[in-house]
Amino acid sequence: MTNQAKANGDPSLWATYELTLEGPSQGNPFADVKLRAVFSQGERQVRVNGFYDGDGQYKLRFLPETTGAWSYETSSNVPALDGVAGSFEVGPAQPGHHGPVRVSNRHHFRYADGTRFINIGTTAYVWNLQGDELEEETLRTLKDAPFTKIRMCVFPKHYRYNQNEPERYPFRLVKKGTSEWTGSFRGDFGWEFDFTRFEPGYFQHLEQRINQLAEIGVEADLIIFHPYDRWGFSRMSPAEDDHYLKYLVARLAALPNVWWSMANEYDLMPSKSMADWERFIHITSDNDPFGHLLSIHNCFGFYDHNHPCITHASIQRSTANLAAVWREQYGKPVSIDECCYEGDIAELWGNISAKKMVRRFWDGTVNGGYVTHGEAYYNEEETLWWAKGGRLTGESVARIAFLRRILEKGPDEGLDPVKSTVAYRTSMAGGLDKVVMAQLFQPTPGEEDWPRAQAWFATAGQPHRYYLTYLGENQPSEFTVATPPGEHYSATLIDTWEMTEKTLAESVERGDVLHFAPKPYQALLFRRVDGE
Amino acid sequence: MTNQAKANGDPSLWATYELTLEGPSQGNPFADVKLRAVFSQGERQVRVNGFYDGDGQYKLRFLPETTGAWSYETSSNVPALDGVAGSFEVGPAQPGHHGPVRVSNRHHFRYADGTRFINIGTTAYVWNLQGDELEEETLRTLKDAPFTKIRMCVFPKHYRYNQNEPERYPFRLVKKGTSEWTGSFRGDFGWEFDFTRFEPGYFQHLEQRINQLAEIGVEADLIIFHPYDRWGFSRMSPAEDDHYLKYLVARLAALPNVWWSMANEYDLMPSKSMADWERFIHITSDNDPFGHLLSIHNCFGFYDHNHPCITHASIQRSTANLAAVWREQYGKPVSIDECCYEGDIAELWGNISAKKMVRRFWDGTVNGGYVTHGEAYYNEEETLWWAKGGRLTGESVARIAFLRRILEKGPDEGLDPVKSTVAYRTSMAGGLDKVVMAQLFQPTPGEEDWPRAQAWFATAGQPHRYYLTYLGENQPSEFTVATPPGEHYSATLIDTWEMTEKTLAESVERGDVLHFAPKPYQALLFRRVDGE
Repeated sequence: MTNQAKANGDPSLWATYELTLEGPSQGNPFADVKLRAVFSQGERQVRVNGFYDGDGQYKLRFLPETTGAWSYETSSNVPALDGVAGSFEVGPAQPGHHGPVRVSNRHHFRYADGTRFINIGTTAYVWNLQGDELEEETLRTLKDAPFTKIRMCVFPKHYRYNQNEPERYPFRLVKKGTSEWTGSFRGDFGWEFDFTRFEPGYFQHLEQRINQLAEIGVEADLIIFHPYDRWGFSRMSPAEDDHYLKYLVARLAALPNVWWSMANEYDLMPSKSMADWERFIHITSDNDPFGHLLSIHNCFGFYDHNHPCITHASIQRSTANLAAVWREQYGKPVSIDECCYEGDIAELWGNISAKKMVRRFWDGTVNGGYVTHGEAYYNEEETLWWAKGGRLTGESVARIAFLRRILEKGPDEGLDPVKSTVAYRTSMAGGLDKVVMAQLFQPTPGEEDWPRAQAWFATAGQPHRYYLTYLGENQPSEFTVATPPGEHYSATLIDTWEMTEKTLAESVERGDVLHFAPKPYQALLFRRVDGE
Repeated sequence: MTNQAKANGDPSLWATYELTLEGPSQGNPFADVKLRAVFSQGERQVRVNGFYDGDGQYKLRFLPETTGAWSYETSSNVPALDGVAGSFEVGPAQPGHHGPVRVSNRHHFRYADGTRFINIGTTAYVWNLQGDELEEETLRTLKDAPFTKIRMCVFPKHYRYNQNEPERYPFRLVKKGTSEWTGSFRGDFGWEFDFTRFEPGYFQHLEQRINQLAEIGVEADLIIFHPYDRWGFSRMSPAEDDHYLKYLVARLAALPNVWWSMANEYDLMPSKSMADWERFIHITSDNDPFGHLLSIHNCFGFYDHNHPCITHASIQRSTANLAAVWREQYGKPVSIDECCYEGDIAELWGNISAKKMVRRFWDGTVNGGYVTHGEAYYNEEETLWWAKGGRLTGESVARIAFLRRILEKGPDEGLDPVKSTVAYRTSMAGGLDKVVMAQLFQPTPGEEDWPRAQAWFATAGQPHRYYLTYLGENQPSEFTVATPPGEHYSATLIDTWEMTEKTLAESVERGDVLHFAPKPYQALLFRRVDGE
């Protein structure tokens, strides 16, 4: 006497395949009912957790990573959900479906289908909890923006400019509290929830927004825990945390564009121990059959990004130029996911200039890393992009789009710091200290690709093909070409702020001296012109 | 049978009093003749070394620090110079004569007569070795510039853009060498000198230029040794070094506006040991009866500025905002004497923008330090201000003059970092790292003057009277006043780049919120308006 599962349309590669089963709604199905399924294709088996979606509906979500025939069979402690079986045919990927983003070339990213992914993030922590009108405006903004990733939270945010309540809560509300920002996110704000009972509508809405991001080519870097909380979601018990985490991963792991960010500022959550974070990482990783990217973002000290389940270093620091150092430290992609916000609010993290933001993007880029944008301009409605989304008004976005276009025209492998010298380290010194810089200028024996003369400025590229040097706030009028001997390159002067590219020379070689008008925020691009 | 000394006109307070005696010119008077004098006024005795000035002329120079009757008596190993005695009456100081600059209020400076000295330096290492036309142009430039100090060398400079030979040499030339800049200041360039024989004309010219600086109110921060050398002056033996040093100090110690800078970049001189520097410091200090300021400037690591003979920390670093830290470390004034040069040359130290230079001035100022300007714009004549002087073409000079005017209107004691909080430390964090900043934000128990709210930006001033806060490249549009409770202040918005001052409010008190247009490079000045 087997139940029947309902599927969500024609299965295709990299599209979420969802099965719905009818089951019990009495008691607490979130806590009481276990449901899993094994999806099989030949020898290949994928184990998927199901979840209760309310109204007697149970769901299993699968993300096909290969085309062809797949079958499944469920298991459950509830007879009606146990032993449900079926099969389906996965067709080719629909246009725009590339699968989850994965690490590629050690320090870069590609979609599962091999398409290059250029990680250009922005942050709008709770854009998805602002009501349809604003949320749809955010989606329109993102559609026209250069960003390929957005950092966003599962839980609502408690902070200055964030006194509005979300329309829904993730858990069953027991008692309402206060919504006032008193200058702190510590203390009891009077809210009570039943953490054993989820509100499926809350998660359905979240999924809708994540799916809409996928449609416009934006990855959802989903923040699972964060400290800016008045409702108690940051101070649940370990059992409640784990229950939430398993439910979330069961729901979302089959969405192709989800990245797991274990936390925003894990180290600002005193109620969580390092053992908790370790457990959360494993629960997420173990219950995600599709291997989404996984990271954990800091405020003060970094988490140990060498952790085998962490796929990339998600870093909060202003010193984006240190990306090259962190790349070596962790052997993973480096995403500087918070480097302050372009804006004008009183808080120091939220009032850097557009020029500074753009500089940090370039600093990160020429040091082989990726940088995430943020914006915090005040307006009367207190709709700051940083938290709520809406419209972007800053001046950095256009320059980030310009940088993206340059990267798109660059090597498909991404940009790596030029390794034959200490070039990339010196940008740090350039920004900070002539002295440190000079210390780093000891030429490495045998180096030849990018010697001392040119090592003053950080350079990234692909050897013998492409070199991108960022001059930052320095403004030399002279630059000695130091490309490898005997090779010819075109030389382009890039104004990263004015967004112009000017050919300085069709063909230059090592030792040629370029002259140009001095100006801050310029870059020099050398592309091989004599074949390789 | 006593010789007679010839004096140089009417003695007056803080004017160099010079006695000339006739003596032997045979042999090597520089090495063979010892000459000293004791100048006395009542119990007070000042011991002065004489020196040979060529053509049988011996000189003794004295800088009167008190008015009234003084007498002197010489001693020498040459009978004609021994036992020469006389007396003279020191009149009041002539207009503009304030005496040597000394340390005052632990971290600041005053002239010996108590007049405030605001240390605003520039650098033109060998402006005094460029021939009369250019040197006189430099003096005209300095007359109209805001600088109160110039860093300059005794010896000529060997570097790119510095292939010209000086008209004179400090020592007797034996053999000419080459003048080419080969990219290094190491190696043998073929020059030979007799280091036991000085060329008095070289030093007479140096003194003329130093005296001309005094006339326009500029102190000469005189660099005694430096590494940028092709003539061998940086690689003399210890005995030759000491002989030179004693001669120099004997000649110059009575010039009121001399500061002793033992070296430019002492640590780039591998031929000198730490013991050498220690000895040089003591020779200088022991032979200077007038207590001129004494410092030693680094490239890499700082000299130990805690040395009791070092009067102030002369520092090369870009991080001018660390002035507050160095003040505490050394308990002395901090002069950031090299923080890169506004300019456009290829060398990274010589191509920062004017905005960056101005920012460093303000960073240093609101952290209780002093910053030195430099300029290195290329021109066809290779007359870069940095080395040769000439004309200033950069955009920072006018802004530095604006800052000087603000400081002149400020407290006579100078500006100290507001000590009741960690405010001044946070500017470092502001520039570098939100995280470090947050760590520093732990409020100090009992602090009240400048609490956490305002501690985001570096502030200096005098408690309960004057607070100057620099917003740097941040651009808040809101600022919460955090002056001490119950006191009233005027609030002025300063645009450090546009050089404007705008009154935001005639009277504000703690807790008032100021709003203004967001823009980088602004500052806020709070002046007490309700008495003290």
